[in-house]
Amino acid sequence: MDIPKKMKAVILMGPNHFEVREVDTPIAGPEDVLIKVEATAICSSDVSLIDKPWAMQPPYGEFIIGHEYAGVVAALGETVDEFQVGDRVAVEASYGCGRCMNCRLGNYTACLNYGNLERGHRANGFTTNGGFAQYTANHINTVHKIPDSLDFKEAALVTNLGCVLYGYQTTGGYIVGDNVVIIGPGPLGLVSVAAGRALCAGKIILTGTRDERLEMGKAMGADRVVNVKKEDAMEVVMEETNGLGADLVIESSGAEKGLQTAIEMSKRMGKVLLLGYPEEPVSANFSIMGQKNIHIYSVRGEGWANCRRGVSMLARGEVSLKPLATHSFPMDDVQEAFDTFTGRIGGAIKVIVHPNA
Amino acid sequence: MDIPKKMKAVILMGPNHFEVREVDTPIAGPEDVLIKVEATAICSSDVSLIDKPWAMQPPYGEFIIGHEYAGVVAALGETVDEFQVGDRVAVEASYGCGRCMNCRLGNYTACLNYGNLERGHRANGFTTNGGFAQYTANHINTVHKIPDSLDFKEAALVTNLGCVLYGYQTTGGYIVGDNVVIIGPGPLGLVSVAAGRALCAGKIILTGTRDERLEMGKAMGADRVVNVKKEDAMEVVMEETNGLGADLVIESSGAEKGLQTAIEMSKRMGKVLLLGYPEEPVSANFSIMGQKNIHIYSVRGEGWANCRRGVSMLARGEVSLKPLATHSFPMDDVQEAFDTFTGRIGGAIKVIVHPNA
Amino acid sequence: MDIPKKMKAVILMGPNHFEVREVDTPIAGPEDVLIKVEATAICSSDVSLIDKPWAMQPPYGEFIIGHEYAGVVAALGETVDEFQVGDRVAVEASYGCGRCMNCRLGNYTACLNYGNLERGHRANGFTTNGGFAQYTANHINTVHKIPDSLDFKEAALVTNLGCVLYGYQTTGGYIVGDNVVIIGPGPLGLVSVAAGRALCAGKIILTGTRDERLEMGKAMGADRVVNVKKEDAMEVVMEETNGLGADLVIESSGAEKGLQTAIEMSKRMGKVLLLGYPEEPVSANFSIMGQKNIHIYSVRGEGWANCRRGVSMLARGEVSLKPLATHSFPMDDVQEAFDTFTGRIGGAIKVIVHPNA
Amino acid sequence: MDIPKKMKAVILMGPNHFEVREVDTPIAGPEDVLIKVEATAICSSDVSLIDKPWAMQPPYGEFIIGHEYAGVVAALGETVDEFQVGDRVAVEASYGCGRCMNCRLGNYTACLNYGNLERGHRANGFTTNGGFAQYTANHINTVHKIPDSLDFKEAALVTNLGCVLYGYQTTGGYIVGDNVVIIGPGPLGLVSVAAGRALCAGKIILTGTRDERLEMGKAMGADRVVNVKKEDAMEVVMEETNGLGADLVIESSGAEKGLQTAIEMSKRMGKVLLLGYPEEPVSANFSIMGQKNIHIYSVRGEGWANCRRGVSMLARGEVSLKPLATHSFPMDDVQEAFDTFTGRIGGAIKVIVHPNA
Repeated sequence: MDIPKKMKAVILMGPNHFEVREVDTPIAGPEDVLIKVEATAICSSDVSLIDKPWAMQPPYGEFIIGHEYAGVVAALGETVDEFQVGDRVAVEASYGCGRCMNCRLGNYTACLNYGNLERGHRANGFTTNGGFAQYTANHINTVHKIPDSLDFKEAALVTNLGCVLYGYQTTGGYIVGDNVVIIGPGPLGLVSVAAGRALCAGKIILTGTRDERLEMGKAMGADRVVNVKKEDAMEVVMEETNGLGADLVIESSGAEKGLQTAIEMSKRMGKVLLLGYPEEPVSANFSIMGQKNIHIYSVRGEGWANCRRGVSMLARGEVSLKPLATHSFPMDDVQEAFDTFTGRIGGAIKVIVHPNA
Repeated sequence: MDIPKKMKAVILMGPNHFEVREVDTPIAGPEDVLIKVEATAICSSDVSLIDKPWAMQPPYGEFIIGHEYAGVVAALGETVDEFQVGDRVAVEASYGCGRCMNCRLGNYTACLNYGNLERGHRANGFTTNGGFAQYTANHINTVHKIPDSLDFKEAALVTNLGCVLYGYQTTGGYIVGDNVVIIGPGPLGLVSVAAGRALCAGKIILTGTRDERLEMGKAMGADRVVNVKKEDAMEVVMEETNGLGADLVIESSGAEKGLQTAIEMSKRMGKVLLLGYPEEPVSANFSIMGQKNIHIYSVRGEGWANCRRGVSMLARGEVSLKPLATHSFPMDDVQEAFDTFTGRIGGAIKVIVHPNA
Repeated sequence: MDIPKKMKAVILMGPNHFEVREVDTPIAGPEDVLIKVEATAICSSDVSLIDKPWAMQPPYGEFIIGHEYAGVVAALGETVDEFQVGDRVAVEASYGCGRCMNCRLGNYTACLNYGNLERGHRANGFTTNGGFAQYTANHINTVHKIPDSLDFKEAALVTNLGCVLYGYQTTGGYIVGDNVVIIGPGPLGLVSVAAGRALCAGKIILTGTRDERLEMGKAMGADRVVNVKKEDAMEVVMEETNGLGADLVIESSGAEKGLQTAIEMSKRMGKVLLLGYPEEPVSANFSIMGQKNIHIYSVRGEGWANCRRGVSMLARGEVSLKPLATHSFPMDDVQEAFDTFTGRIGGAIKVIVHPNA
Repeated sequence: MDIPKKMKAVILMGPNHFEVREVDTPIAGPEDVLIKVEATAICSSDVSLIDKPWAMQPPYGEFIIGHEYAGVVAALGETVDEFQVGDRVAVEASYGCGRCMNCRLGNYTACLNYGNLERGHRANGFTTNGGFAQYTANHINTVHKIPDSLDFKEAALVTNLGCVLYGYQTTGGYIVGDNVVIIGPGPLGLVSVAAGRALCAGKIILTGTRDERLEMGKAMGADRVVNVKKEDAMEVVMEETNGLGADLVIESSGAEKGLQTAIEMSKRMGKVLLLGYPEEPVSANFSIMGQKNIHIYSVRGEGWANCRRGVSMLARGEVSLKPLATHSFPMDDVQEAFDTFTGRIGGAIKVIVHPNA
């Protein structure tokens, strides 16, 4: 494949200020592949770190953002024979250092050398350059082959599925027949519905405030949706669970009352999974948590290679993320893409940018 | 519901000799329901204990066999308000004593007081009277409501699904994208295919010797079937798994070479689940097991309430057991039913008897 | 053994009002033993429910309090052959209904029929009569034999160890070489130190505000104690853990800042175990929890038969609870016993009452 | 530290033929430390691969054997700041490739690129040069600091403890109060006794054929030892476990009947851990395994960083391996050292060679 010396990429220049610029095309390291990026999705964490830098973020003027992307292998690092040029691939963000205790034990998204490039850690789009670019260099551990049947737009969203699957696996991974409540129909909430349905949950109840999103949740597998402006969600959950509460409550709203609500809706010995986090401290009654013997789980990133699992689900059609990919833009219109995402213009859920379109 | 004093039931009279006789209708104990049985399936363990008594089996002339059945609640024990007369239900076999250490920790199918009625253990169709009868008394822990949409024939097979699910849960319960080999297309092998597909396994490879059964396996979700008389199964597994071996091998053939083959087909750090057991000791190379860091799991019965989970799957159509229910007979023809099952007459897989037909 | 018809017991008469009264000696049910109580410890939950009734508590004028006790088997229920009259025993509080889904799966301290006597649930000292009495009736599942070498005072405290062990088991149960921070040197905090040491933790750091208690913690196995009035505990933890934070933080203070502190002190991928709970809602920054991929566990009671495990530890001297048993009173002085406990008079930690002294 | 260009090392020249030769001192790679080796223990796997090459073993004439060693850091690879020259250290054998799926998930001793140096895998003493040498180059993931209080001879044995701990962790890791049978008082069997005692097992029963070794087992923590030439081990186990069998049976004899015996001695729902493996296939009755719902676990190497945990135990004196280190030799006498080990001369258990003595 013919690789140009220069490429276009979205460079973060300062708070809430990015530009499409021409920069050097990256070079694949010994264990990397170079990816020609075909689709990159906007994530709310992009919006957050554009607004205010995250820990260990590269300096303004150098940093290429974007961590949800898919494309084609354009070149191989010198030791790589696991891939071939031309392979269609999707990526995950985190490559752990491999030498801290967390990485050694497989918990690479919780790498203890996070942001320490010298010790080997990389998180494309967070601490190293990412996917709003025509090319990226990715360690092979972050790259997953996808079949021809999977289009790049859907594949670019696989980290969302990987994160949700990591959450399910963290809470035990086996939910056949279990009742699941999902609070908040944002992208991760909706993916939680689809993945929960695919994993053969019992009843799935989705709560939120926007009818349109709730309808999409129903289409993606929710048995019951509750607009909390119109119905008492707690009453619904108790009614649907024979008065016992849910086996698993996934709080993905990040709302102030989210955790407290999740604890209340949970069965004795139930589990709460946090996928959304309010920035500020929030209050909850942990005494109830203790009385009910509840555990609260959190997940960072898309750990335990769940993107590989997610690709399998997408390839087989066991989960479809296509309904989430509502809008597409060429990279030159990346500002409009972000405006569409943040303003939810035209019912935008996930907005995709095409760097090589 | 009007309950007759006497009922018809299949009584085991001696080795390979049973008769349909009239006996007293059982009475529901304080925590039991009385079930009017609509469908009872023949299991290979029935054939085995008819041939040669199992440990703790009731005496000839008294023992009503049958442990896979479904029907309608006909009466409630005095403390029972979890069910109502008229509820359609399926059952599992084991009710643990509740007072041994295994039962206390939830492992009731491995009750340490197995067969000890005085301490409370019951296993209908094994140590207490079972389902080849017009009525049975079942502790409520062994009874699961089923929806109207689920017919009794399919519901009678739920222990097969419960057993397979218990196996999957025992090995971790989370197999999304994992490659699974299933050895032996008997009823449990075929159910393993269907359940593995429902749990979003990666590739499912089914091996066996009968093309007809393998075709059924393909219809139930196997990606690849191997007739070991025609192809080298080991080669196929290696080819399909990129030379690594399978993440999980389910040995359900009970054949002499089954365990050895399973160990060989397993990936490093893979798992082997035994669902079939040869009666006699068999030989295997455990040195390979150690080199590959493999674990071997077995399951007794349909533990950890997996029949409840199985009912959820059947009710939602996530797994269908209908293709297995190949033949039906009224109870008066129970001998013919057994002959059909053991002789695999007409391609018989599971044969159902209808005690109240 | 000669059992009197009447016995003395502490009856809760109203809020913060109890009396020693003569009542009928209880009778052992079919699966019970009757225990002649030799030592009963005061727990802070006793103080709480004396002040304000807990859910499902028996009515004033009837309710015998006390759930931490030990004694001698005085009579056997009709089906019991697991014990003999004269056996020395310690107890745990919870007997699950055995018929809800949580009990079936071994989670009997989270019984879904909590307080429902008709369905079989019992929690002596909470929902059924307890141990501030000369005799109690206990289901055998709540009774553990103790060796002659174990005195009743120490044995009466076994639920504290059972609860802490249940906590350790809940978080994984395997802490060899892991660094553990314990916040709060109350009884459960001190037991956590001793049990953590016995389970071969790495560094154990205990934080608190009272030097006397911290010294006891040191004697029980803490490597480092921190009086937070004099030192910055966060700094100490980071210094002792190479800047990484603790693998496990046990919050047993119940203080308002406890949970937030625990999250901050935890390593990436670390765990937080809650043993103390503030009654009112408290605030914490869950965003940090998510960034670090931390899980928060709670435990209700002394689940998964950990009292049996605790008895093994006490019998072998792997943990000693003797230093906690600071004061003893005959039952007639039960009011003084409670005053000593609540006022921490004479450095009281655990106060024991002897109903038959 | 002054490092010579040349060093002495034990080179494997052919089957059962090694020589002490002068070779180039190895150079530490970017993520390595160079270790001046002070003590190297002989393992039975050394004896095996000297006799007959293991898979992926380096060629005769080049291969330096030895994988159990301890020493002092003599130089640092260019990226290493986790260690300092002069640090006293012990090692483990396996460094996984870091890029296969097993390594990514923390299962580096089951690396799917075992023996593939180009992809980064190294196993010193198996596929790369080992510790019967004055110096070794070790990736930092395989190196653990040890305190001054721990002598090199005991530290050289830490892989034995690491392997046993990995075995315990594999079977659940939490054995407080559980009854454990250990078959075979070889080094791993004896370490299993000591570690089981440290982890607060219930009864530990050790079986074997040599009184001397059994006595050592008693000194290391066994409650009961059984010389199977004099007593019926099965009877003893049943007597000691109230007729139920053991919660965990560790088979470390590698004898032909070992696995069958382990299955028989196991409780329903018990576990069997294999630490010894017969080279040839052996026969066992898996039907019993299924009836009792038993699982069989194997372990390869000292996975999941358990050597770090083992160092913590040794440093605190929770386990002592000193009784095992029965004999010492300078490296020039390495042949005598091996003869002593294989011939169990003078009651030899573990024999230590000192490369720099």
